Amino acid sequence: MKETSDPQPEEKSGKSLLKELAIKLGVTQREAKKFDIPVLVIIGAMDATEKGRLLNQVLLEIDSRSFKVYSTHASHTEPRRYPLLHRFWNHTPLKGHIQFYDRGPYYLVLDTWAEGKLHEDKLGRYWEDIINFERQLSDSGVQIVKIFLTVPKKEQAKRLKKLESNPATSWRVTPKDWRRHRQYRPFLEAARRMMDATDQPHATWHEIDTEDFKTALIEVYHRIIDKLENAVKAAKEKKASAKRTGESKPWIPYKGRNYLSEVRFPKPMERATYKRTLKERQETIHELAHQIHSREVPVIAVFCGWDAAGKGGCIKRLVQSIDPRGYDVVPIAAPTKLELSHHYLWRFWKEMPPQGKITIFDRSWYGRVLVERVEGLCENEEWQRAYQEINEMETHLHRFGTVLIKFWLHIDKDTQLERFKARQENPLKQWKITEEDWRNREKWDRYEESVNEMIEKTNTPYAPWNIVPSKCKMRARIQVLDTVIQAISPAIKKAKKPAL
Amino acid sequence: MKETSDPQPEEKSGKSLLKELAIKLGVTQREAKKFDIPVLVIIGAMDATEKGRLLNQVLLEIDSRSFKVYSTHASHTEPRRYPLLHRFWNHTPLKGHIQFYDRGPYYLVLDTWAEGKLHEDKLGRYWEDIINFERQLSDSGVQIVKIFLTVPKKEQAKRLKKLESNPATSWRVTPKDWRRHRQYRPFLEAARRMMDATDQPHATWHEIDTEDFKTALIEVYHRIIDKLENAVKAAKEKKASAKRTGESKPWIPYKGRNYLSEVRFPKPMERATYKRTLKERQETIHELAHQIHSREVPVIAVFCGWDAAGKGGCIKRLVQSIDPRGYDVVPIAAPTKLELSHHYLWRFWKEMPPQGKITIFDRSWYGRVLVERVEGLCENEEWQRAYQEINEMETHLHRFGTVLIKFWLHIDKDTQLERFKARQENPLKQWKITEEDWRNREKWDRYEESVNEMIEKTNTPYAPWNIVPSKCKMRARIQVLDTVIQAISPAIKKAKKPAL
Repeated sequence: MKETSDPQPEEKSGKSLLKELAIKLGVTQREAKKFDIPVLVIIGAMDATEKGRLLNQVLLEIDSRSFKVYSTHASHTEPRRYPLLHRFWNHTPLKGHIQFYDRGPYYLVLDTWAEGKLHEDKLGRYWEDIINFERQLSDSGVQIVKIFLTVPKKEQAKRLKKLESNPATSWRVTPKDWRRHRQYRPFLEAARRMMDATDQPHATWHEIDTEDFKTALIEVYHRIIDKLENAVKAAKEKKASAKRTGESKPWIPYKGRNYLSEVRFPKPMERATYKRTLKERQETIHELAHQIHSREVPVIAVFCGWDAAGKGGCIKRLVQSIDPRGYDVVPIAAPTKLELSHHYLWRFWKEMPPQGKITIFDRSWYGRVLVERVEGLCENEEWQRAYQEINEMETHLHRFGTVLIKFWLHIDKDTQLERFKARQENPLKQWKITEEDWRNREKWDRYEESVNEMIEKTNTPYAPWNIVPSKCKMRARIQVLDTVIQAISPAIKKAKKPAL
Repeated sequence: MKETSDPQPEEKSGKSLLKELAIKLGVTQREAKKFDIPVLVIIGAMDATEKGRLLNQVLLEIDSRSFKVYSTHASHTEPRRYPLLHRFWNHTPLKGHIQFYDRGPYYLVLDTWAEGKLHEDKLGRYWEDIINFERQLSDSGVQIVKIFLTVPKKEQAKRLKKLESNPATSWRVTPKDWRRHRQYRPFLEAARRMMDATDQPHATWHEIDTEDFKTALIEVYHRIIDKLENAVKAAKEKKASAKRTGESKPWIPYKGRNYLSEVRFPKPMERATYKRTLKERQETIHELAHQIHSREVPVIAVFCGWDAAGKGGCIKRLVQSIDPRGYDVVPIAAPTKLELSHHYLWRFWKEMPPQGKITIFDRSWYGRVLVERVEGLCENEEWQRAYQEINEMETHLHRFGTVLIKFWLHIDKDTQLERFKARQENPLKQWKITEEDWRNREKWDRYEESVNEMIEKTNTPYAPWNIVPSKCKMRARIQVLDTVIQAISPAIKKAKKPAL
């Protein structure tokens, strides 16, 4: 039977509806906070879309301890010394928080294109990088809302003129705004192609016309509230069907190529040869480091390896001849509480080098597929998808011109035992050995499987693994320096800065 | 009886002595780490003093997880948008860590003077700011070593020429280096006046000549090792004589002027008047915010007040009309573990606005003399010296041109009770009230004493307190907006950027 007696809902005045939506947003956000849900709202826009006023209204009912706004300025030069996504990684939402991007990464790319500094053909690779970024965040639980504000061309002109006619606001209208206004059609078309190319099930675009402010505001409220409500609903369902905690994760073995078993240990190096060669190589590194600075090349060296394989010693010899202003050593320990509230790559992104700087990681993001896998510190799905995430991150760095050098310092189990014992007996080195080192040693086989799988899955042409036989520490150090020299020399010659 | 039979200590070769000192530094640093001692090493220098090589040698034996180097570049423009000490506060040492300043704050001031951009008469006020900074760190337990590297004029010329003659290093010698070389005598004299003016018992200067590299290196080792050894010794003694923990701190009453009792609550504002006035004031704020941006004035608004006095509501009305790119709201909660490993002002310094930005603190550094005092979260000596520390910080901000606006939102005890009850009854506001609010309320009298003492001791001409009667929320909001308008308007007119 068709229902005919439904009372017509009373037509709400725009004002009371707005108030209602504002309150609803506040309530839903607090609920999302209870479930520790992180939210990212990207607000791209044409000029003169009243984005500021709109954003302000949206923020009013959200507890100020629960949101952050990151504004993207195309004119800021400092962040351009880093890969495009660096600044956005540094502003990803904490659990339970909403992060707003006022403009955001899409805008930077479109703006560079509109200014004629980036060819249309190149746009695709930036969309790819941003899509990967969003997928990685989404996989870790971040809810993403993407909004693009538009305004009809005539109305845009009207608003720009109004701003210009008021002495207090006239400075806000720049020649660039008028240039962009003349480009109205091609710019909007490019933005729409961008939206088509980057619309994802977990991060859909909403194009919102701002000719009428209230209608636009209502639409923005709805988009954010819907996303939050769905996320809360899903979180509740997940909680109801949650796995028994404490359940141990099954070990997923790796049966592929055993890279480590292929390592041959060459005979020890003579001390005299070592001393002479070390001096020569360090002089070369010294010169190269200056060129890295002057040619503005970013360099990353990652040191992984068995406990007691000699990472610290290699790093020391590497940096010994470099001006301290030219490098940073970043030691990676267990993540802090703050770091655990972010995507696991966040803490590494913070440390990525700008142009002209060398960053040396003493342990790294590969901890995800090594210690976190072996010790069950993350879910199996998490370390399994990390290979792709890491490759995507390294691709993005590579595209920016970053030189990536990755070392696995390899020793055998007997050598490690000898070194552990020697450390325990030497009062100057006792601090280097802990109970944890002995515990890790018991899991040698699982670590070996994990290292092999890591090499198999993340050994790429632009970021290859260097397995360094390290039974002879002197030979290992020379090999590390040689590898660094070989990786840097060609990069300096062809150094060319990307548009972004 | 005079001893004559002492065996002459075997003269050590420079090399083995260096090795010995390097190891000693490593050992002492690890011991200092056990006692959570933070260390700051400031290395100022003339040009061509081989500072980089020297620093590198010093770092070699220190565990890379335990030190950081912060290099100061006079040419970096981004940090100049903040007060001089901002970047150094952001790089103060964690407990158990050594922070090196490669150059540091003294250098920036001297360099600006040497470039003719700062009059000699102005130097004193910068030295004062830096001395205060060091005293504050020292009071919180930071050990400070200050080194100034020199080189004879002839040797400096020789080194610059040598660098110039090598194509790989010639780019490192700039016209500025030669200009500074010609200024050798006045520069060195200015540096020595600087050292005289800023030598403190807890932070003495060591001028070290680098003509002979090894002698200089030995001297640097000694200065750092001595400082660490003394600190470890003191920490051991302190531990032995440590107070019984858990001992409750005696309450230190305040008997001075009772500012809060002088507050008169005016009659409530009419809603119609409020709405009209609010709109007007927000329009004014909107315009002023644009001028803050274009005139590049930094602005800080601090909101303190009783629980339920209406801080959040005032902040909302204040920011409602401001472009979100122009302001930040910084909510202050209990400090994190990382924040507790730093001086208590560190977490606020991180958030200070650059030129052209408004930062609104929802609670603030005044927590030290309010909640931390009342709840016994810090030692009595700590909150007692905080008044001076805060005044010094606000002086430094003011000298940079920052507008400081401080609010205490005042209500009486009955009004608070009414509002607490209303919050509990309103499902949309229940989240705003916690057990803690009720507990705080029980200590009303102690809070009142603390607020009065805070106003007495930190009410300065450049950062006065505004006590806002907030029984009528509407009237309070308008008074807040009026105060902001009155504070900002003259500052915009006379805005003048400091040399640093």
